[in-house]
Amino acid sequence: MDDPLNLVLFSGTDDKLQAAAVLTAGAAALGRPVHLFLQYWALDAFRADRIAADHGLAAEAGPAGRKAVDDLRAAGQSSWADTLRAAKELGAVDIEACSLSMDLLHLEQTDLDPLVDGVEGVTAFFLNAEQGQVVFI
Amino acid sequence: MDDPLNLVLFSGTDDKLQAAAVLTAGAAALGRPVHLFLQYWALDAFRADRIAADHGLAAEAGPAGRKAVDDLRAAGQSSWADTLRAAKELGAVDIEACSLSMDLLHLEQTDLDPLVDGVEGVTAFFLNAEQGQVVFI
Amino acid sequence: MDDPLNLVLFSGTDDKLQAAAVLTAGAAALGRPVHLFLQYWALDAFRADRIAADHGLAAEAGPAGRKAVDDLRAAGQSSWADTLRAAKELGAVDIEACSLSMDLLHLEQTDLDPLVDGVEGVTAFFLNAEQGQVVFI
Repeated sequence: MDDPLNLVLFSGTDDKLQAAAVLTAGAAALGRPVHLFLQYWALDAFRADRIAADHGLAAEAGPAGRKAVDDLRAAGQSSWADTLRAAKELGAVDIEACSLSMDLLHLEQTDLDPLVDGVEGVTAFFLNAEQGQVVFI
Repeated sequence: MDDPLNLVLFSGTDDKLQAAAVLTAGAAALGRPVHLFLQYWALDAFRADRIAADHGLAAEAGPAGRKAVDDLRAAGQSSWADTLRAAKELGAVDIEACSLSMDLLHLEQTDLDPLVDGVEGVTAFFLNAEQGQVVFI
Repeated sequence: MDDPLNLVLFSGTDDKLQAAAVLTAGAAALGRPVHLFLQYWALDAFRADRIAADHGLAAEAGPAGRKAVDDLRAAGQSSWADTLRAAKELGAVDIEACSLSMDLLHLEQTDLDPLVDGVEGVTAFFLNAEQGQVVFI
């Protein structure tokens, strides 16, 4: 159980990011190192100036899903960003931006929230992942 | 090949659930234990009162995709729920609802189809997953 | 690190296929065998007569995402199909169509781009995957 868990985050909607944050926190609580690799729209959601903004939900959520998410948030559920911040205090959670997606979105690391530890290419991602599992979200 | 296969189901559209059911049945046929962990819109699709309803398709399916899926169903393809029922007779398939998503959707286990064996948290999910693979769908 | 990487491609939008192609090329560059298993809308995107067409982006991309992708492409980024062709020259990349999805879309192998090496069922997919990771995209 001490193999790293490696999450490739592609989607940037708040529901998928929350699911990813919960998996991250659960694995970190069990002592597993977790690597997050941010691509495309997930990377866009980590921009410093909009990480706390509304990033929408998956299209399939519909109005009932939207209301359920809003109600739970109003009742005090942590945002996915706060869940990730807590997970970082709990264990070894490393968050890296994909260099190709940084180019795509014309971003520098200073544009990103401090949750993001660095920028790496896909080869580095696989080398850091070692024998651990890769999960695409 | 006897490591468990662990599928986190997030999406609740009929095409993704069918893909998940086929992977489940294939792994079960090879003797692998399969754990399904139901989150968000996938969990919503397992409600007893609407498991047989139309849950839509991924947005990218388009009208041609919709027609292809409807035609195959009319030609006798099993629904994803029936494929999962058959997989459970074939092998060790355990289906658990994520406790956080139960809260989100205000569900009790009695609201869910009998396909669902129980409710667990993300930590229990990782402990049951052991060294087996985790796949997010 | 010589376990095969097994990617189940479900989505057929150009952004997800590009992400899959980049992961494929990265793993192949490190000497790992890569198996791709094409289902549903991803399989549809490999049709010989439209592999080079515009397959859209994930719904969440929005107009700013669309522009970013178009700009990068105009600046010379390879298409996902070209990235996969290069990955095949670099390493052991095997691309198989899912037989159930072939039926769904009424396709014969001759309808598919030569990138696709063959057609197999889900049981064969799991057997070829061996102990390697399974990633669903």
